[in-house]
Amino acid sequence: MNISELKNSMDPKNVGREMYQLIVELYPICRSITGNGFRQTMEILRRYIPLQIHEVPSGTKVFDWVVPKEWNIKDAFVKNSKGEKIIDFQKSNLHVLNYSTPVKKAVSLKELKEHLFTLPDHPDWIPYKTSYYRENWGFCLSHQQFLTLEDEEYEVSIDSTLDSGSLTYGELYLQGEEENEILISCHGCHPSLANDNLSGVSLATFLAKLISSGSHRYSYRFLFIPGTIGAITWLALNEKKASSIKHGLVLTGVGDSGKITYKKSRRGDSDIDRAAAHVLKHSGDPHEIVDFYPYGYDERQYCSPGFNLPVGRLSRTPYGRYPEYHTSADNLDFVHAESLGDSYSKVLEILSLLGNNRTYLNLNPKCEPQLGRRGLYSSPGTNELALLWVLNFSDGHNTLLDICEKSAFEFASIQDAAYKLLKNGLLKLCLEK
Amino acid sequence: MNISELKNSMDPKNVGREMYQLIVELYPICRSITGNGFRQTMEILRRYIPLQIHEVPSGTKVFDWVVPKEWNIKDAFVKNSKGEKIIDFQKSNLHVLNYSTPVKKAVSLKELKEHLFTLPDHPDWIPYKTSYYRENWGFCLSHQQFLTLEDEEYEVSIDSTLDSGSLTYGELYLQGEEENEILISCHGCHPSLANDNLSGVSLATFLAKLISSGSHRYSYRFLFIPGTIGAITWLALNEKKASSIKHGLVLTGVGDSGKITYKKSRRGDSDIDRAAAHVLKHSGDPHEIVDFYPYGYDERQYCSPGFNLPVGRLSRTPYGRYPEYHTSADNLDFVHAESLGDSYSKVLEILSLLGNNRTYLNLNPKCEPQLGRRGLYSSPGTNELALLWVLNFSDGHNTLLDICEKSAFEFASIQDAAYKLLKNGLLKLCLEK
Amino acid sequence: MNISELKNSMDPKNVGREMYQLIVELYPICRSITGNGFRQTMEILRRYIPLQIHEVPSGTKVFDWVVPKEWNIKDAFVKNSKGEKIIDFQKSNLHVLNYSTPVKKAVSLKELKEHLFTLPDHPDWIPYKTSYYRENWGFCLSHQQFLTLEDEEYEVSIDSTLDSGSLTYGELYLQGEEENEILISCHGCHPSLANDNLSGVSLATFLAKLISSGSHRYSYRFLFIPGTIGAITWLALNEKKASSIKHGLVLTGVGDSGKITYKKSRRGDSDIDRAAAHVLKHSGDPHEIVDFYPYGYDERQYCSPGFNLPVGRLSRTPYGRYPEYHTSADNLDFVHAESLGDSYSKVLEILSLLGNNRTYLNLNPKCEPQLGRRGLYSSPGTNELALLWVLNFSDGHNTLLDICEKSAFEFASIQDAAYKLLKNGLLKLCLEK
Repeated sequence: MNISELKNSMDPKNVGREMYQLIVELYPICRSITGNGFRQTMEILRRYIPLQIHEVPSGTKVFDWVVPKEWNIKDAFVKNSKGEKIIDFQKSNLHVLNYSTPVKKAVSLKELKEHLFTLPDHPDWIPYKTSYYRENWGFCLSHQQFLTLEDEEYEVSIDSTLDSGSLTYGELYLQGEEENEILISCHGCHPSLANDNLSGVSLATFLAKLISSGSHRYSYRFLFIPGTIGAITWLALNEKKASSIKHGLVLTGVGDSGKITYKKSRRGDSDIDRAAAHVLKHSGDPHEIVDFYPYGYDERQYCSPGFNLPVGRLSRTPYGRYPEYHTSADNLDFVHAESLGDSYSKVLEILSLLGNNRTYLNLNPKCEPQLGRRGLYSSPGTNELALLWVLNFSDGHNTLLDICEKSAFEFASIQDAAYKLLKNGLLKLCLEK
Repeated sequence: MNISELKNSMDPKNVGREMYQLIVELYPICRSITGNGFRQTMEILRRYIPLQIHEVPSGTKVFDWVVPKEWNIKDAFVKNSKGEKIIDFQKSNLHVLNYSTPVKKAVSLKELKEHLFTLPDHPDWIPYKTSYYRENWGFCLSHQQFLTLEDEEYEVSIDSTLDSGSLTYGELYLQGEEENEILISCHGCHPSLANDNLSGVSLATFLAKLISSGSHRYSYRFLFIPGTIGAITWLALNEKKASSIKHGLVLTGVGDSGKITYKKSRRGDSDIDRAAAHVLKHSGDPHEIVDFYPYGYDERQYCSPGFNLPVGRLSRTPYGRYPEYHTSADNLDFVHAESLGDSYSKVLEILSLLGNNRTYLNLNPKCEPQLGRRGLYSSPGTNELALLWVLNFSDGHNTLLDICEKSAFEFASIQDAAYKLLKNGLLKLCLEK
Repeated sequence: MNISELKNSMDPKNVGREMYQLIVELYPICRSITGNGFRQTMEILRRYIPLQIHEVPSGTKVFDWVVPKEWNIKDAFVKNSKGEKIIDFQKSNLHVLNYSTPVKKAVSLKELKEHLFTLPDHPDWIPYKTSYYRENWGFCLSHQQFLTLEDEEYEVSIDSTLDSGSLTYGELYLQGEEENEILISCHGCHPSLANDNLSGVSLATFLAKLISSGSHRYSYRFLFIPGTIGAITWLALNEKKASSIKHGLVLTGVGDSGKITYKKSRRGDSDIDRAAAHVLKHSGDPHEIVDFYPYGYDERQYCSPGFNLPVGRLSRTPYGRYPEYHTSADNLDFVHAESLGDSYSKVLEILSLLGNNRTYLNLNPKCEPQLGRRGLYSSPGTNELALLWVLNFSDGHNTLLDICEKSAFEFASIQDAAYKLLKNGLLKLCLEK
């Protein structure tokens, strides 16, 4: 089955529920851009898809960056003078500044406060903070709790290691009919945050699972990587492969209840941009399309000028536009099976469109062919106008998506028309440009 | 006299009345895509213009099509059991399914109904139906009458022939100063229907009559053809001539009281598209301009990708947007001398513009020439600003129409300015690109 | 100091007051397109800037034109039969038709009226009229006074000369780092009219004074010329130099209280057009941008098709849109120090932008460089997003202004980001295209 057929064979609502369950399983793990949490996450994904796990040693030069030391953590807490654990890593891994160096000492409230992070505007929530490239230690807590801290001596303990090791990432390559690739990339480095980005990880996993079960025109490459440094590392180590990427999507924040937001690639008019716009427009659902800007997630790296890959980003509510972003409120209540299933369905539709977006040549270009003689005129289930659009514009220059955009027809109708004309010997497939 | 002068010498209202009279004369004839009705129509037009009549034998292969058998009809009726003619071809030729095979037999009401066509939504009107490429017989009648038919035996009689013969069309070629052609095409195959398309036939006839009485830059080719198969036949037999067509108009439905609608050529920005838009915009009259779509009248064939000719379509209310379309209500009351005269006037203005749309070169391109010394500065009847627009943009790249579009001047002013500058030796004509 | 620094070192309000004082000094002089009034004006400007004065002999052929005879005037009046001077050149030099031939004779009211010009719609104001290329004499007066003229004999006297001499203009060339030039042109031929164009003369003078005190990338050429014939003369005598002009501004009517109007060059998208649009948009002040049209001031000559220079025009309220235009009401009350200072400030900002509008190449184009390591990440006073825009689009094709237009950032932010990246070795300057 090709992707269209696979898509039609699935119930997105069911898949949404499975995606949610995977998020539930992954949620408690303390992940970071390196370390065992990330490895454990990849192992769980390998129950769904045959991920290949790569380990890139600390210190490896990747363009302007260096793969950092590997971080691991066993436990962390702050105790008050009565010996009570008032901040406890075991309760939420967000309590620790991600990449905290090990520490174990008594500190005054004054000193402690220099290492505490809170969200005064959301006094109930714990913020998510990191310090990957500047060695530091710290704790994150609710502002409410912060206000109750008394002027006494505290015991701080972070049982972490920051040593030479490696950066881990997962990769799945699915050979298609063509060497040309579609890249699906998601960052899997965030600890207990559901929407950002276990939602993207889960979506990519279920897409990979489905696509690997059928046949497909394009080859597919799925990357489960730590944000920024992971994309940079993959690009640095696979510079030549990058040129095979004909379309790509970064998947992040795809589980909240907001409408879908598609951010265009740097090129702005690449096929992935137009396919996403087409699918979202014809879905009838609210959505938003935004122009490229050089900020955000790993599209920043894929769309850096030295690569300029046709990679867009699909999210629901964009980061920074929901207050739960990078806080403990981005939890299992913030993502929904229904939203996950809808994101899954729409991405599949985009991928299906790309796979079917061919250029044909009208073999009877002088005047219209006689459709009636071929049973294509006013016959039930045949959209005659769609046939005429495909015939008139299949001059070897227009893809089916071009014809959709000219005619305002939905892709499925134009594709169906092309299929009928092809079957009747009125079209032939053009080679890719 | 050139077309502009000819146009100014005519009163469109008078011509509109003559055009209407021609429609009145042609209206009763039972035409089809072949046969004596079409021939008789051409003979009447030959009283106005020296049409050349072509006969293309049945069976001739024309691209993907074959010229069909010739259809002729003498009489047809349905009699009830009392022997009364309840449907009578002599009262309206729309009563017979156009291209009906001969039949003479007694039928039950049940069998008869399988061959009857009505319009339930317009119970007073007789529909116009054809069956050119699938042999069948039938009658069209008002839905009102249909409801009164009793369950009895009927006698049906269609005295028609469908035999090897020929497809007839009329052609008038007017040699101009250039071999480059303007094509004016209209379909003349409909029986008693006034707007669709005796209006177009009459308009083309009176345009041809006027243009043949003067001199003109472009050569003109007027085609009076059966719809679809006629255009295909002409293109198939004149494939090389088609490349001389630099501008073209399909004229249909130009006599109703609606506003003018111009449908662009497939190219979308050809001179005919821009000339029509300019004339309609500056007319101050309501009008509509629609993009090309691969449906409609013979522009479908002229704009097929193998030809892609710059041929637009000028109509008033488009087919399918007036309920009288293809019914007995498209009668002599539905078209008006005034509308016909207005269509005539606007088409002449478009043709006049095309004939005058030249590219000039400013012979004094460095700084402005001294207009005062030549009596062109602040002199009565001279639009100095138009002179400056023509001088500034006559750099060998812009046509007068380009300059109109940049300056928002009407063509007549820009053309007058160009004429004055040319007379003063400040411009020279550029060769066509 | 470069232009940006010079600009920041000035208080535009102070400069506006100095500009106004210069206008006050120049206002009483009777200027024309030739003659001592123009010369005297240039001598006054030489107290501010080292203008080079050119004298082009009458009769010199300049493209389609000829440098006219030189006009000078000592006095002029009309006396009534009682010997009272009822029109007196000494009271306002607008009273004399500019370029009037000498005359001294007695005339009837009837004959006198053939040589009088008034403004019935503004009965208090004296019009400004000229007759450069058709020899004539005449007087301009208020319509109010005109209505009181009695039917008696008048003595008219114009003590003028119209003889072979020369056309005078002032020029200041400031060598920059590049041979490429910015042209600043203003017409200085109008007599006692403040906005049109002592305002432009004063603005150009103070711009030249400031720019000559610092260093600058482009060479600058300031022209103080008589309108039309002056621009034509300069272009005819400096045809080769014209090709060095990369950007240019005609400055006229920059002292009234209206909003700034920028008229685009004929090219419509040249850097000067985009720079002016950017500065005006980000100023937050009301303004208007109009497309090129081949009428107006000396941009007509610079933008004639044989030159097509990227020269726009900056004014406040455009000529013809204020009733005081070309009348005695365009006086010292009509222009304001504040408006002059604002025009000065905005032109300097445009020139500063052009000087800084470079194209850079990202030296680390594959993925983002690690900004944190260089202290460019989240550091105070650094707009990280601006850095990312400059990095992402500095691919050798985009100028900083291109990046501003894509990102909606103001030029200063983008320029600052480029400066920081350049200092950190992340960019290099591209050679001009």
